[in-house]
Amino acid sequence: MKVVETIAEMKKVRRELKGAIGFWPTLGYLHEGHLELVRRCVAENDFTVVSIFVNPTQFGLNEDFDKYPRDYPRDLAMLEKEKVDFVFMPLVGEMYPQRFSTWVEVEKITDRLEGGIRPAHFRGVATVCNKLFNIVQPDRAYFGQKDAQQVLVLKKMVADLNMNLEIVVCPTVREPDGLAMSSRNTYLKPDERKAAVVLYRALTLAQELWDKGEKDTGKIRRAMIKLIQQEPLAADNINYISIADAETLEELDKIEPPTVVSLAVKIGKPRLIDNIVLE
Amino acid sequence: MKVVETIAEMKKVRRELKGAIGFWPTLGYLHEGHLELVRRCVAENDFTVVSIFVNPTQFGLNEDFDKYPRDYPRDLAMLEKEKVDFVFMPLVGEMYPQRFSTWVEVEKITDRLEGGIRPAHFRGVATVCNKLFNIVQPDRAYFGQKDAQQVLVLKKMVADLNMNLEIVVCPTVREPDGLAMSSRNTYLKPDERKAAVVLYRALTLAQELWDKGEKDTGKIRRAMIKLIQQEPLAADNINYISIADAETLEELDKIEPPTVVSLAVKIGKPRLIDNIVLE
Repeated sequence: MKVVETIAEMKKVRRELKGAIGFWPTLGYLHEGHLELVRRCVAENDFTVVSIFVNPTQFGLNEDFDKYPRDYPRDLAMLEKEKVDFVFMPLVGEMYPQRFSTWVEVEKITDRLEGGIRPAHFRGVATVCNKLFNIVQPDRAYFGQKDAQQVLVLKKMVADLNMNLEIVVCPTVREPDGLAMSSRNTYLKPDERKAAVVLYRALTLAQELWDKGEKDTGKIRRAMIKLIQQEPLAADNINYISIADAETLEELDKIEPPTVVSLAVKIGKPRLIDNIVLE
Repeated sequence: MKVVETIAEMKKVRRELKGAIGFWPTLGYLHEGHLELVRRCVAENDFTVVSIFVNPTQFGLNEDFDKYPRDYPRDLAMLEKEKVDFVFMPLVGEMYPQRFSTWVEVEKITDRLEGGIRPAHFRGVATVCNKLFNIVQPDRAYFGQKDAQQVLVLKKMVADLNMNLEIVVCPTVREPDGLAMSSRNTYLKPDERKAAVVLYRALTLAQELWDKGEKDTGKIRRAMIKLIQQEPLAADNINYISIADAETLEELDKIEPPTVVSLAVKIGKPRLIDNIVLE
């Protein structure tokens, strides 16, 4: 496994590769959920490139950029074990030099949900992924379904700008009790960790109601809220519950599959997100 | 010469090309100035791709999108004669399908001059060029120095987004009396056509003053204004005269080469632009 630190070297490495290139851009601090995605990327491509870059432009001013958990030696050891070929780890000043001033904006789909709560977050995500896609020039880039809105934003960017790669979406990986794996779970204290399963339980309830024939999104939403409010650490901290078209993210009155049910709840310090797709 | 009408076909054609690809995106209605650029592109590359696309997103609501001069058969005949290999002519609905919502914004450098007068113009230019660069994947893309700000915007986009091509800038081609060639010159009535040479004469005056040692941009600007005001059809129609850093387009008090002197003057219907670089 080769670690590449500059854009010029990464482009040079890329020019010399022949075959299918799989790419996974991550903020790092890897967990088992990430590794399932990496394994799929390695299995499906001739070469796998992983970038580790805590991208400042996707964090808000009052968010956790400085405190975002980092453990590069551990990350690199885990990626080496999975037979990743290249790890691209650029410095912030290399990705955003002085006078940097170009932004990729995916409009409409970014107005609500995570985009509504975190202004400029998706502008940062789209811009850094656009840059990384141009540097690595992958055939496929892998993302987790856990960040459902992010996946839709990036698919829209790739389609609208006619970029030459496929966005591959990998299923959310969960802890035994159902909590979606996330680097931010490390912020949870023991009692918060127990309470955090309420997100998955609310999604499971939505799935059950849909399976029984319920199509009224108002009823499903109210049932989810009621369930979450039984958990004291979550009760007053629901950011949103969304039942929306799985492509446009427009809210629905009646479920029309595929429909994505997503929610964000603050539990202790971190704001946790999760979703399922009703099909 | 092959005419390609869909994005999918253009991408397929591109995948099969081996060698250096030169690309020239144009709105069409070609003139001799364009052809010098095409000849250089053909000479410097193994294959030349030209796109003809009157891009609606770079025209303002009250601008001349509908009336922009078009003569595709004539354009194609001229390009065939220059031994262009491929002409890409997509439909508007192919480039901007329903729900299109992704924009490339180059900030700061677009705030003033043409960007100040034509809001969203450079957003349209950057977005369509980003799309075309992804579709055609050229090694080099050719643009005319006449659109000085456009060249800087596109160079900035390519650098900031780490795109894999070089922007090649071609000198402005002029009529015998000095008027910069432009498709919009066809809008000029005979007396306006004569008056239009005042832009070049003002630039030549700036060059002469600089050659004689004048560095004070205020003095040079005032001399240019005085000269233009002697031309009745131009006198009250100066949009701007700018003497700015040739890379950042920031206005200068004292000339520090390379400095770009640019101006926009409305003569009759069209707004004409021109520039020179003091070195």
